[in-house]
Amino acid sequence: MDKKISTARIRKNLEDLKAFTATPGKGCTRMPFSKETRAAAEYLKAAMKDAGLDVVEDCVGNIIGTRKGKDSSLPAIVCGSHYDSVYNGGDYDGIAGVVVAIELARILQEENAMLDTDFVVVAFMDEEGCRFGTGYFGSYSILGEMDVEQCKRFKDRDDISVYDAMQRYGLDPEKVTEAAWDKNRIGHYIEMHIEQGPVLDAEKLEFGLVNCIVGIQRYLFTVHGRSDHAGTTPMHMRKDAVDIATKVISKIGDLARAEEPGTVATVGFIHAVPGGMNVVAQEMSFSVDIRSTKNEIIDKIAKKIQALLEEETSKCGASYSYETKLSITPVDMSSAMLDMMEDSCKKHGYQAIRMPSGAGHDALAIGQHHDTVMLFVPSKDGRSHCQEEHTEYESFGKATEVLYDLIHTL
Amino acid sequence: MDKKISTARIRKNLEDLKAFTATPGKGCTRMPFSKETRAAAEYLKAAMKDAGLDVVEDCVGNIIGTRKGKDSSLPAIVCGSHYDSVYNGGDYDGIAGVVVAIELARILQEENAMLDTDFVVVAFMDEEGCRFGTGYFGSYSILGEMDVEQCKRFKDRDDISVYDAMQRYGLDPEKVTEAAWDKNRIGHYIEMHIEQGPVLDAEKLEFGLVNCIVGIQRYLFTVHGRSDHAGTTPMHMRKDAVDIATKVISKIGDLARAEEPGTVATVGFIHAVPGGMNVVAQEMSFSVDIRSTKNEIIDKIAKKIQALLEEETSKCGASYSYETKLSITPVDMSSAMLDMMEDSCKKHGYQAIRMPSGAGHDALAIGQHHDTVMLFVPSKDGRSHCQEEHTEYESFGKATEVLYDLIHTL
Repeated sequence: MDKKISTARIRKNLEDLKAFTATPGKGCTRMPFSKETRAAAEYLKAAMKDAGLDVVEDCVGNIIGTRKGKDSSLPAIVCGSHYDSVYNGGDYDGIAGVVVAIELARILQEENAMLDTDFVVVAFMDEEGCRFGTGYFGSYSILGEMDVEQCKRFKDRDDISVYDAMQRYGLDPEKVTEAAWDKNRIGHYIEMHIEQGPVLDAEKLEFGLVNCIVGIQRYLFTVHGRSDHAGTTPMHMRKDAVDIATKVISKIGDLARAEEPGTVATVGFIHAVPGGMNVVAQEMSFSVDIRSTKNEIIDKIAKKIQALLEEETSKCGASYSYETKLSITPVDMSSAMLDMMEDSCKKHGYQAIRMPSGAGHDALAIGQHHDTVMLFVPSKDGRSHCQEEHTEYESFGKATEVLYDLIHTL
Repeated sequence: MDKKISTARIRKNLEDLKAFTATPGKGCTRMPFSKETRAAAEYLKAAMKDAGLDVVEDCVGNIIGTRKGKDSSLPAIVCGSHYDSVYNGGDYDGIAGVVVAIELARILQEENAMLDTDFVVVAFMDEEGCRFGTGYFGSYSILGEMDVEQCKRFKDRDDISVYDAMQRYGLDPEKVTEAAWDKNRIGHYIEMHIEQGPVLDAEKLEFGLVNCIVGIQRYLFTVHGRSDHAGTTPMHMRKDAVDIATKVISKIGDLARAEEPGTVATVGFIHAVPGGMNVVAQEMSFSVDIRSTKNEIIDKIAKKIQALLEEETSKCGASYSYETKLSITPVDMSSAMLDMMEDSCKKHGYQAIRMPSGAGHDALAIGQHHDTVMLFVPSKDGRSHCQEEHTEYESFGKATEVLYDLIHTL
């Protein structure tokens, strides 16, 4: 390589950043507006300055480093990810994408490169949403989709609102809308992220070229039956909520399997009331999380589940109800940038496939408005959001190569 | 009726006994060795004495009233039920059977009847087992199947053992084995009980002639899968414990429905781990309670469930385990006494059917060793073990008639 991409520098950054956790030895816990995000922010600012970037921390805690191009009035190339984590998460989710963006800036500095447009590195605050039950806080803020009311509404488990937490952190929540960027500021948004799934690792591929971030619909269904004595109530006189609900739940996985790859459906939460071993259940609640690259597929599965519930409950005079917990439409990635990354992979001899992202990312928020692409690197055994999360540092070096090519092609 | 069966007396007893609850206005809570059982015991002793019985409280808290017959050395006719309750239970479960037995004694006294054998009324302590997780304590004690070790082992939620509770109640737990009766003391055991199920009420029948107390096998199964991200893990790479387990649970009700009436199977407890809406479940536990009058049917269903679990888990390399929580074989009731009761019903013009008891009773313990029969009266809407439990007083009067005939035929 003529350019000096350094896996060692990436490694050093990531290993340094591992220290900023509230749970040392038990994975990365870097909640928004905590002393751990403060320490990580200061580290990232210093690293960005070393990379020759003009650095600011905006009024919501995003760290933004800019390398001026020939014409700063043109839409910029923006590259980054988030620097918060889940509770007891891994050391790469989010932060690795920030570090790779900084490595790109370092190379541009070393090459004394003069791009046509500004190159902007962003480390987003609070993508995970673990503390306040929000998510995409930093990216929604730069898109102008966050306001003071929302900051007051969302609270953590100690009843501290985003608003309060920002004040304690030294930010002025009244200025949250000032974090919004000009609508034409982003020309291209590029995010490298670990896959958080098993596909690349299992198929021994270097990269996933993310062509779509899946849409999600999430529901909480409740079957309302009747509680009865498990010994004295004949089968034909029951309205057994577990019997009814499991007749539907058992088909949900198959509904997803019958659709095109990239479609998933999951029942992760399940609860029977009253829950006694010798009592016929009166109620059974269960969550359904449906994801696909096509909204019509998600709609179809959701409708089919309701039809099955209708059918099973009506057989014995039971009923059901549901709450919609989440509804996000799929976001397509830039096919032009995907082609460019594919060419780069071919040039370097890297094995890559196009694949959807089954998880949300800052790119999901930004991609709704701007030309966006994501590059996935393998997660060992697909593990993520846990201490065991692992990606080889070499993968981040290779990703930097591909993104370097992409920036130059753009 | 020439004999003077008095529904009014039965009603008065039952209404007086309603007062002995730890949860006034919220159903009957009469836990073993509590001040409520003490008050009920004193009331029952007085009522038995009024009925001309020789009354003792044995060393485990059973209240026993005896009317001497011509030959006390012959096996006696024993009639009764229990006087404890579940938490927030109804006013008839157990105690109605005791009161009906006392009414029988009153009639025998009024008639100055001289039976061939002793007639013994028993109010059993702790049939429900709610406080200590035991059950059939009083009846096992007279059968000689209770010992000091068991009294020490079983504890309530405040960590008080049966042993301690007996001492505080004024009984000597070291004498528990002295409660055992001579093996030939019981000639016939007769128990009237509310049905606790909906059959008699729904079919407008006066009586259920219990021909069998069902056997029960109770299991806790656990499917061991693997926790994965609900968005990033393709369907074919999952070991989804909920998907696997519900494919089995959804068939359990049908397995019981495929067998003869009286067979029931219930999944009342269900638990998915970790339980997050966006996490594929790593583990799913569920209880199965199977009851039937035929042990081979119970065995067959239990084996079929295991075969289904084997089949579903092996498809994706998951596994399962189980614990046996309970295993009781069915107990047949005396066909001679059933015939006698049937004749009596015909004579009085009462509609009755032969039916199994899906719940356990003192008759389950005693029926393993002695000629036993049960008579069920209707429970409104099948409700029991709750405040709404209801049976018309008239039913208890009619039951007394049938049992009076039975005693005289014996």
